[in-house]
Amino acid sequence: MRLFLLNCRRPSSINSLSRISFRYASTSPKDNTMSTVNKSAHPFDKGRLEALLSRRFFYAPAFEIYGGVAGLYDYGPSGSTLQANIVAEWRKHFIVEESMLELDTTIMTPAPVFEASGHVARFADWMVKDTKTGDVIRADHLVKNVLEARLVGNKEARGLAVASAKEDEKEKKKKKKAAKTVAVQLSDDVVKSYEVTLAQLDNFSGAELGDLCRKFNIRNPDTDNEVTEPQEFNLMFASSIGPTGQHPGYLRPETAQGHFLNFSRLLDYNNGRVPFASAQIGRSFRNEISPRAGLLRVREFTMAEIEHFVDPKDKSHPRFKEMRDVVLVLLDRDVQSSGSTTSIKMSIGDAVEKGIIANETLAYFMARIYLFLLKVGINPDRLRFRQHMANEMAHYATDCWDAEIHNSTGWTECVGCADRAAYDLTVHSARTGHPLVVREALKEPIVTEKEVPEFNKKTFGKTFKQDAGLLQKHIENLDESALLKLKEELAQDATIISVEGKSFELTLELLRVERKTFKQSIREYTPNVIEPSFGLGRILYTLLEHTYWSREQDVERGVLSLPPVVAPTKVLIVPLSAKEEFNPLVQEVSSKLRRAGIFSRVDDSNTSIGKRYARNDELGTPYGVTIDFASVQNRTMTIRERDTMDQRIGSIDQVIATVTDLVEGNINWEQACQRLPAYDGVQAIES
Amino acid sequence: MRLFLLNCRRPSSINSLSRISFRYASTSPKDNTMSTVNKSAHPFDKGRLEALLSRRFFYAPAFEIYGGVAGLYDYGPSGSTLQANIVAEWRKHFIVEESMLELDTTIMTPAPVFEASGHVARFADWMVKDTKTGDVIRADHLVKNVLEARLVGNKEARGLAVASAKEDEKEKKKKKKAAKTVAVQLSDDVVKSYEVTLAQLDNFSGAELGDLCRKFNIRNPDTDNEVTEPQEFNLMFASSIGPTGQHPGYLRPETAQGHFLNFSRLLDYNNGRVPFASAQIGRSFRNEISPRAGLLRVREFTMAEIEHFVDPKDKSHPRFKEMRDVVLVLLDRDVQSSGSTTSIKMSIGDAVEKGIIANETLAYFMARIYLFLLKVGINPDRLRFRQHMANEMAHYATDCWDAEIHNSTGWTECVGCADRAAYDLTVHSARTGHPLVVREALKEPIVTEKEVPEFNKKTFGKTFKQDAGLLQKHIENLDESALLKLKEELAQDATIISVEGKSFELTLELLRVERKTFKQSIREYTPNVIEPSFGLGRILYTLLEHTYWSREQDVERGVLSLPPVVAPTKVLIVPLSAKEEFNPLVQEVSSKLRRAGIFSRVDDSNTSIGKRYARNDELGTPYGVTIDFASVQNRTMTIRERDTMDQRIGSIDQVIATVTDLVEGNINWEQACQRLPAYDGVQAIES
Repeated sequence: MRLFLLNCRRPSSINSLSRISFRYASTSPKDNTMSTVNKSAHPFDKGRLEALLSRRFFYAPAFEIYGGVAGLYDYGPSGSTLQANIVAEWRKHFIVEESMLELDTTIMTPAPVFEASGHVARFADWMVKDTKTGDVIRADHLVKNVLEARLVGNKEARGLAVASAKEDEKEKKKKKKAAKTVAVQLSDDVVKSYEVTLAQLDNFSGAELGDLCRKFNIRNPDTDNEVTEPQEFNLMFASSIGPTGQHPGYLRPETAQGHFLNFSRLLDYNNGRVPFASAQIGRSFRNEISPRAGLLRVREFTMAEIEHFVDPKDKSHPRFKEMRDVVLVLLDRDVQSSGSTTSIKMSIGDAVEKGIIANETLAYFMARIYLFLLKVGINPDRLRFRQHMANEMAHYATDCWDAEIHNSTGWTECVGCADRAAYDLTVHSARTGHPLVVREALKEPIVTEKEVPEFNKKTFGKTFKQDAGLLQKHIENLDESALLKLKEELAQDATIISVEGKSFELTLELLRVERKTFKQSIREYTPNVIEPSFGLGRILYTLLEHTYWSREQDVERGVLSLPPVVAPTKVLIVPLSAKEEFNPLVQEVSSKLRRAGIFSRVDDSNTSIGKRYARNDELGTPYGVTIDFASVQNRTMTIRERDTMDQRIGSIDQVIATVTDLVEGNINWEQACQRLPAYDGVQAIES
Repeated sequence: MRLFLLNCRRPSSINSLSRISFRYASTSPKDNTMSTVNKSAHPFDKGRLEALLSRRFFYAPAFEIYGGVAGLYDYGPSGSTLQANIVAEWRKHFIVEESMLELDTTIMTPAPVFEASGHVARFADWMVKDTKTGDVIRADHLVKNVLEARLVGNKEARGLAVASAKEDEKEKKKKKKAAKTVAVQLSDDVVKSYEVTLAQLDNFSGAELGDLCRKFNIRNPDTDNEVTEPQEFNLMFASSIGPTGQHPGYLRPETAQGHFLNFSRLLDYNNGRVPFASAQIGRSFRNEISPRAGLLRVREFTMAEIEHFVDPKDKSHPRFKEMRDVVLVLLDRDVQSSGSTTSIKMSIGDAVEKGIIANETLAYFMARIYLFLLKVGINPDRLRFRQHMANEMAHYATDCWDAEIHNSTGWTECVGCADRAAYDLTVHSARTGHPLVVREALKEPIVTEKEVPEFNKKTFGKTFKQDAGLLQKHIENLDESALLKLKEELAQDATIISVEGKSFELTLELLRVERKTFKQSIREYTPNVIEPSFGLGRILYTLLEHTYWSREQDVERGVLSLPPVVAPTKVLIVPLSAKEEFNPLVQEVSSKLRRAGIFSRVDDSNTSIGKRYARNDELGTPYGVTIDFASVQNRTMTIRERDTMDQRIGSIDQVIATVTDLVEGNINWEQACQRLPAYDGVQAIES
């Protein structure tokens, strides 16, 4: 059983999709002065990309000079600015666009909160130990890696091409090597049973994973030793608050609890109205068992989470109609349970109508997530929504769809979109006694009638003295039918009633039972929660894979085609040399761009312009402007587009206006080319 | 001894400054239609401000429904957006303006890093325990609170006004009560010794604090019990990384180590050039002993830190001249050591010339810090720079100036500006063996001459066989004078040399000593670090105190005069009622403002416009626009300014253009009034 969101999923068996390479040409047939770009001239090479990301300090292992710690990474200037830009876009797309209530809650959390939320008992993964070396391995990862390696070995033994592309072969060979498997042919039955197991992997309990290890004779591939029965390992980092050591605490594994605990204050802030959403961007921590997948599985990460609070009786969404025609690739629960991974394309309007997606709000957010991912540059052909299977869901969820992004390791969950129902608010309310409910004025009051005992204040107390309270409480607690019986008896005569062994005589002098009308004008309910939860590091990494390619003429010249909206630097200012005569113009261009809100950097380092541009292709800088002697003489400037390497020329102010429009998305490069003539010095500069 | 930055300082004895109330009038004598504003009609009332901040969910105790945890706070929508705006401004003012290299490093840190940095041994506070109850108290806070309470008691006994303002009196009475002190008159000598002790409080070691407790008979004010000798308590939260529990880790208490460990990568990113600065905004953790001061002393907080790497031989700053005339209030080390807290006003140019501030870079950043704080709305009359005393400095600092902001608790350090010299890079380099140095090409190579032994390859090995290596090494290690002696001896004849008990005869056949010229073209050095370190929560809280006031006519009507640049919402859109006929215009105004980049909120809640505006005065929203029947008919809209409550009217597009200019700081309210005529319905709406 997999107990939480944001886990890396197995590489899919859909090889057709794993080979999608994004084709792109920014040329227009109408404008034959523009260069063509072939971004898929070279197959994707993960090693080259990783070298680039390290060289340009997008990120690096944290504490590298101390030998590093698995699952902890530092973002350098390029990576942290890229992340900051993704966060800024997220804020605009979700918080500003939908007037969400932003929160910033603490990471350090006292233990009772996670006891109530269920995380202390259930936020765990299954691990096995090597019976001889004691090495720790995550049980589901072990099963996955060994079975996949055997399937590769089988294909080789049968002489089948493992995959059409070089890099996939490399990847599989690595796995095969890791699993110490040789090319062994498997029977068709065994192949089928492996494939079915892999398709359902996220659905197994610890005991079932143990059974699989025995059934398939799965051992630690590094040592060929047997492994122990799977044990649970809680993934929260523990600490202790205050100087006395008496207050155990945990680092939050998600930001969500901070939203739930503040629910009453948020509701109040929103003037008591539902639906509304809170949003938070912040660090969370998971003490992963043996993280080895770069940014895709880390122990500390930045999340962005939305908790949308909604009436459980009405999960429609007021803006659903704006999204209903958005078409998503869906892989639902039933398809997976049948052992398949074949997805379908469908508009969310249809998916809700057919009951594939449970409700409008869930579907609305799936569409909004999709649009956000496209906006920051994710390839829509490598994006799907996969529904969780029953056993796979986090303990708090009733339904969950993951936005999975395809990359060199397979399909990776990057955004979870779960219906947490009323789980969290209910458990915290039960634990603390603090009501976490919505009180809603009913438009039509609900009218009910019932029998009510009315005590005669003058006589009742006097008659029964110290027993009056006991007797009154007893009568008030009688149910409707008992009250009706009492009413009938009183109407006829005096009647005797026994309480705790004592008998009391009642008459109409002492009390009457009357039928009364009640109006309920307030409805009280615990709202449900729809939770889109974003793993920003995973989005960032898959984005880097999706935007990376090499120049057709030179595989060593890597380019990151990051969209301007997220590119760390929008414009590179390149003076021909570090000579002082260029300084005033560099200053002018730099300050004019700053005033226009465009983030630029100057590169006046001691190397050729071509090399400086090549460096900035690797940094994903979409535009470069060159200041040369012509700039000094004529106040002209050239502008270069990263992907095509096209260069155009214009007056300094014209180029600044054009690049501002480009970065803000008002025009595309083709339109820019209509404004500015081609520059013929291109070859000289890029050589 | 106080071992770290960002600690709350004692309330100063300068009562003159503690009573500064910011006077402000946004009126102009030229325009007699504008209202006058008296922001100091009512004395500052901390209780009222705190009630407002809680009611409007700026922040609240974290885990409130679980009873809360001291020193942990959650920011609500107003607080987190205010903080996000301060962060955005910080990014612009520092990172963008100076092309700093942003970083985002991990919080979880393996123990060896903080062992090397000195934090495991020395990042501690002194605590004492109540000898009977075991309650834990921070030693310096105990001494401070008890002595201050006694000084208050003394003043009362002498019949002196304790302070001119009500709220100060309240504050002191609270302290007095806390310290269970009655009005007891003290001798002049005792008063003097208390005052001198308080002025030097940050300078005492643990043993000295223990001496003070005995000397002044300081007890736990809550129980009147004696306290133990001060013990050190390490302020880092401890945890453990990975499933085996073998890797102890700490949550970082500052972001700085993440910069230092990545120094080589940063230097490389900056093309090997120095000076440059890295910058990081992120969470840090300090397990404070007994935090009780709201946002001013917390266990988890957001910091913004800059590490400016500079040549130790040249701490000039290229942009110093832009700042040299900025005048700061300075309280230097010598003044404090003499027992005084009298500050001086001086330009940083003069301060550097007179040696009060050690170097240009430190002074440059102090001026930049000052300008930043003013930009976000800190009152310059309540801002000073205080130099650390020798014992008070963090273990890594050689000089440090704190930007202290005055508030109801006294002077609070909000930004530290320290010269950490080469401390951190040196210790990490020593621990890991990884060089953390700058290698700089010298413009003028350094030319030196020295004697060098030259061995005759043909004869030397043959002659001395297995001893050749030993002998060669011995000779190579001789110093200049020994080589000169050898040279002379060889010039005269053969000479005997003894190594490890063996004798060898040397001649010019075997080796010569020659004078050679060497050119050194690379200089290698460990850079120094100037570190401005911002506690954003402290800045946020003091800003709220500085901008809070009550309407002259009604003390219950609070206003937060937050500058537009940081105000959580810039424009409130107020339809006359929630009627549907206003919806299209609300949508239009809202989307036009969004396109102009102005963050607005709609308030169509079911209450009077006056009440909605009053709520938004408390939220610090600078402008409100009202959509009413006239808007529907004539496409006009009124705009209201928060502080003056002035209302103006214009066409919808005119008002949007004006409010955009106002928010972006292009015009002030006076100029807006010249564009838009007064609206006469004001009284009706605000009543």
